Amino acid sequence: MSKPSLARGTRDFGPEQMAKRTFIFDTIRRSFQRYGFLPLETPAFENLSVLMGKYGDEGDQLLFKLLNSGDFSGKLTDSDWQEGYKPLTSKISEKGLRYDLTVPFARYVVMNRGTLVMPFKRYQIQPVWRADRPQKGRYREFYQCDADVVGTDSLLCEAEIVLLLHEILPALGINDFTVKINNRKILTGIADMIGAHGMEGPLCVAIDKLDKIGKDKVVEELIERGFSNESVTQLDPVLTLSEGAEPFTTLKNWLASSEIAMKGIQELEEVWDLVKLLGLENPKIQLDVTLARGLSYYTGAIFEVKANNVQIGSISGGGRYDNLTGTFGVPGISGVGVSLGVDRIYDVMEELNLFPENQKTATKVMISNFDQQAFRFGLSVLPKLREAGINAEIYPDSVKLKKQLDYADRKNIPFVILIGSDEMETGQLTLKNMKTGEQQKLNADDITALLAENND
Amino acid sequence: MSKPSLARGTRDFGPEQMAKRTFIFDTIRRSFQRYGFLPLETPAFENLSVLMGKYGDEGDQLLFKLLNSGDFSGKLTDSDWQEGYKPLTSKISEKGLRYDLTVPFARYVVMNRGTLVMPFKRYQIQPVWRADRPQKGRYREFYQCDADVVGTDSLLCEAEIVLLLHEILPALGINDFTVKINNRKILTGIADMIGAHGMEGPLCVAIDKLDKIGKDKVVEELIERGFSNESVTQLDPVLTLSEGAEPFTTLKNWLASSEIAMKGIQELEEVWDLVKLLGLENPKIQLDVTLARGLSYYTGAIFEVKANNVQIGSISGGGRYDNLTGTFGVPGISGVGVSLGVDRIYDVMEELNLFPENQKTATKVMISNFDQQAFRFGLSVLPKLREAGINAEIYPDSVKLKKQLDYADRKNIPFVILIGSDEMETGQLTLKNMKTGEQQKLNADDITALLAENND
Repeated sequence: MSKPSLARGTRDFGPEQMAKRTFIFDTIRRSFQRYGFLPLETPAFENLSVLMGKYGDEGDQLLFKLLNSGDFSGKLTDSDWQEGYKPLTSKISEKGLRYDLTVPFARYVVMNRGTLVMPFKRYQIQPVWRADRPQKGRYREFYQCDADVVGTDSLLCEAEIVLLLHEILPALGINDFTVKINNRKILTGIADMIGAHGMEGPLCVAIDKLDKIGKDKVVEELIERGFSNESVTQLDPVLTLSEGAEPFTTLKNWLASSEIAMKGIQELEEVWDLVKLLGLENPKIQLDVTLARGLSYYTGAIFEVKANNVQIGSISGGGRYDNLTGTFGVPGISGVGVSLGVDRIYDVMEELNLFPENQKTATKVMISNFDQQAFRFGLSVLPKLREAGINAEIYPDSVKLKKQLDYADRKNIPFVILIGSDEMETGQLTLKNMKTGEQQKLNADDITALLAENND
Repeated sequence: MSKPSLARGTRDFGPEQMAKRTFIFDTIRRSFQRYGFLPLETPAFENLSVLMGKYGDEGDQLLFKLLNSGDFSGKLTDSDWQEGYKPLTSKISEKGLRYDLTVPFARYVVMNRGTLVMPFKRYQIQPVWRADRPQKGRYREFYQCDADVVGTDSLLCEAEIVLLLHEILPALGINDFTVKINNRKILTGIADMIGAHGMEGPLCVAIDKLDKIGKDKVVEELIERGFSNESVTQLDPVLTLSEGAEPFTTLKNWLASSEIAMKGIQELEEVWDLVKLLGLENPKIQLDVTLARGLSYYTGAIFEVKANNVQIGSISGGGRYDNLTGTFGVPGISGVGVSLGVDRIYDVMEELNLFPENQKTATKVMISNFDQQAFRFGLSVLPKLREAGINAEIYPDSVKLKKQLDYADRKNIPFVILIGSDEMETGQLTLKNMKTGEQQKLNADDITALLAENND
C-alpha cells in the first residue's frame, strides 16, 4: 500500500484556491461575452497528425502522447524496437494532449468552415498540457484563456483586445499594468533597414532580452548571431528608443524608406486612434519595438501585458496571424487573438492581496446540531434558507458544540444558527456572527431575510 | 496536407452546445453550493499507481495511458519487448488520464487528511476519459458532476442527496423522474436469506436486469450462475415485489430473521423520514431492491435516477461507501456521493425541448457598419452598452448591410442598431428587433436603458 502522490508538475485545487480561480475565470468570461465572443470547447486529446509539426521540434517533444489502447506492440518487429524512441513513438501512439488552444481552434475552424458565421469570435478557457521540466511557476497542466476573431482584417479587433485588457485587469483589481504593442512588419522593416534582410528571427530573439540583460549584452549576442558590426551600429535607435512621448515620430523618420515598416507603423497608429474612439481614457499602452514573442507565428500586431511593480513575467500576450489554418490546407483566414495566463494572474493577485474576501461559492450559514430533537427542528429551517438562495448546511452529527463551531470557523462560514431548547420553545433562534462573536435572537424568517439581504 | 479530424470518440462543443451545457453545469453547481459543497479540481492525469487496480481488470484496460516523455525505450531490453503489451506498458508509461472523479478525490482526501475539515463536502465537475469503443451516446471524453460528503455516517447525507436531485432536475425542467433507492445491506440479507451467503454479487448482476429482460430470463440467468432452484424459488418475493404502497412492510416481514437486512431497511426508513422532515412534498423516491449498480463499491444506500417517458438510461447514480480511502492505506473514512451524467441529461433535455431560448452567453446587440464615418460614430456608442452589462459588438468591416444582418441573424443576435447619416445627424439611432423586424428610433441612452432592462 504505497502513499499516493500527485503526478509531477500537476496540482490539486482545493476549495480555497478554487474560489479564487473561479473569480478570475468568471471575470474573464464575463468580459469575453460582453465583447461578443462565444464559447468553444475542444477535446483534451487530438490526433497527433493535428498537433505534430505545429510547435517546432521542441514543442513536438513536449507533447504528452497517449499510448494506443489494446495490444499496441503485437505487430511491431525487432527493427521497429531498435530504431530509437522517436520513430517508435509514431508506431505506438496516435493521440496527444493539446499543447495550446490555438491549434485545436484552427482545426475546429477548418472542420466547420462551411457553417461558421464569419467573422467568428470565440473564447476558450481550458487546460493545456506540456511535458516541460516542472519548476517554480511552471506546471505540466495549466489553464489558458483565449479570445480570437478570425475572418476579418479589421484593426478594430486589435483595438478591442486593448479595451478588453483594460476591462478585465481592473475588474480583477490589477490597475497598474502596461500593454506593450509592436508590429511584426516593423521588425521586418528594421531587419531590412540595417542590412540584415530576413534575419528578423535572430534579431528579435536578441533584442527581446533588452529589458533583462541590457544593451551591451544584446549587442554582444547580435554579433554572435552573425550580425555585422555595421548592422548593429545602425540598430542603435531601436536599442535607445525612449519609451515616451511620440514614439511614432522618431520611428517614422528612421524607417521612412522601408515600405513594410511604414505599413506596420500606420497599422499601429490606427489601433491607437480606434482605442481613443472607443472612449478609453489614459490607455496603458506602449509601443515596444523590441517586443517579438512567438515571432514565427504573428504577422501583424504583437501584444504583451506586464503587471507593474511585481516580479512576475507577462500575464497576457497575443497578436495577429494571417495564416492560422494554412497548415491544414486552408489559407487566407486572418485572425487576431489574446491569451491570458491564469496562473500568473493568480500570483500577481496573491502578491498584491487583491482577492475579494467573501467568495460566493462558500457556505453562508450553518445550523448547529445539539441533539436529535434540535436536529429535527433545524431540518425544518434549512430548506427556507436554501430557497432564499442562501448557501446553507446543518451539521450532520450531534457532537460537542465546540467541534461544530470549529468546523464552521475552519470552513470560513460567517454565520451559525444555534438551536437549543429555549430556541425551540420560543421560535427565536440564536444567530451567531462568527467574525464578531455577536449573537442575536431572531425567528427563522427574519434570519432568512437578513442573510438573503447581504448575499452577494 | 491531410484534412484534420477529431480523435475518435471525442467532440467539439461549439457556441450553441456550450450555451446549453453551461446552463446545465451552472444549475448543478449552484445547487451543490446551496447545499454547502465546496469545489475541488484535480489534474487530468494521475500516476498509474493511483489509478490501476481501482476499476477492475476491464477498467485498467480502459485507462488512457501516457507514454513517458523523452527516450522511453532506450533502456529496454529485447526480452522487455517480447513480454507482450501488458507488462511492457508499465515500463514505458507511468501516468494515465483519470477514469472517474472518485479515485482522484480519494487520493486528495488521503494526501490532505491532516488539514481537511471533516466532514468534508466537495463537488467536482470535470471531464473523465475512457478508452471504450465509441458508440451512440458513449464517448471517450465526457464530464462527470460529483458531490460527496466524507467523514460522517449521518444518514442526513443520503436524505440531502435526495433533496439535491429534487432541486437540480426540476431547475433543468426535468419534472418527471424517479429516484430509485436500495441498500447494500438488504442485498446481503437477501443472499443470506435464500441460502446463497456471499453471493450477492452474481445475484445482483442478474436481478439488476429485471427491468430489461423480465422475470423468466432472470431466473434462467440465476440458475446458470449457480443458484439452486430452491434459492431462486425463495427469491420470488423480490422479483414480484410490487412497487407501491408500503414496500417496507412486505420486506420487513420477509426479511425479519436477517439482522443485516433489517439494518438496511431501518437505514432506508430513516432516509424516508429525514426527506419528509426536510419538507420535501411528494418525493419522487422508490424502493427498488433489485437496484445494485457498482455493488463492489457501495456498502449502504444505493441511488439511481431515471427520467421517465424517455428512452435514455439513468441520468444520475450514487451511494454510500465505507472504505473510500482504504485502498490508499487509510481505512475508516465513510462517505456518500452522487454523480450526474451531463451527456444523458443533455439528451433528455433535447428530447423534451427543455433548454431556455435565450442564453446569457450570447451577444445581445450588434451595431452596423455602413461606412467609415458611421463606424466611428458606432464606436462611441459601443462602450456605453458594454458598461451597462450588455453583450455588444460592432460589425468590424464596412460591407453590405445584408451581409451584416445575415451575420446577426445566424449568430442569433436579437437586436441590431442601424446608424446612417440621418441617425448621426439627429442622434436618434434605429433599433431593429431581429425577430419581429420592428424598428424604432431612440437615442443611445434610451437604447442602453431598454436593452439593459430586459437583460437576463
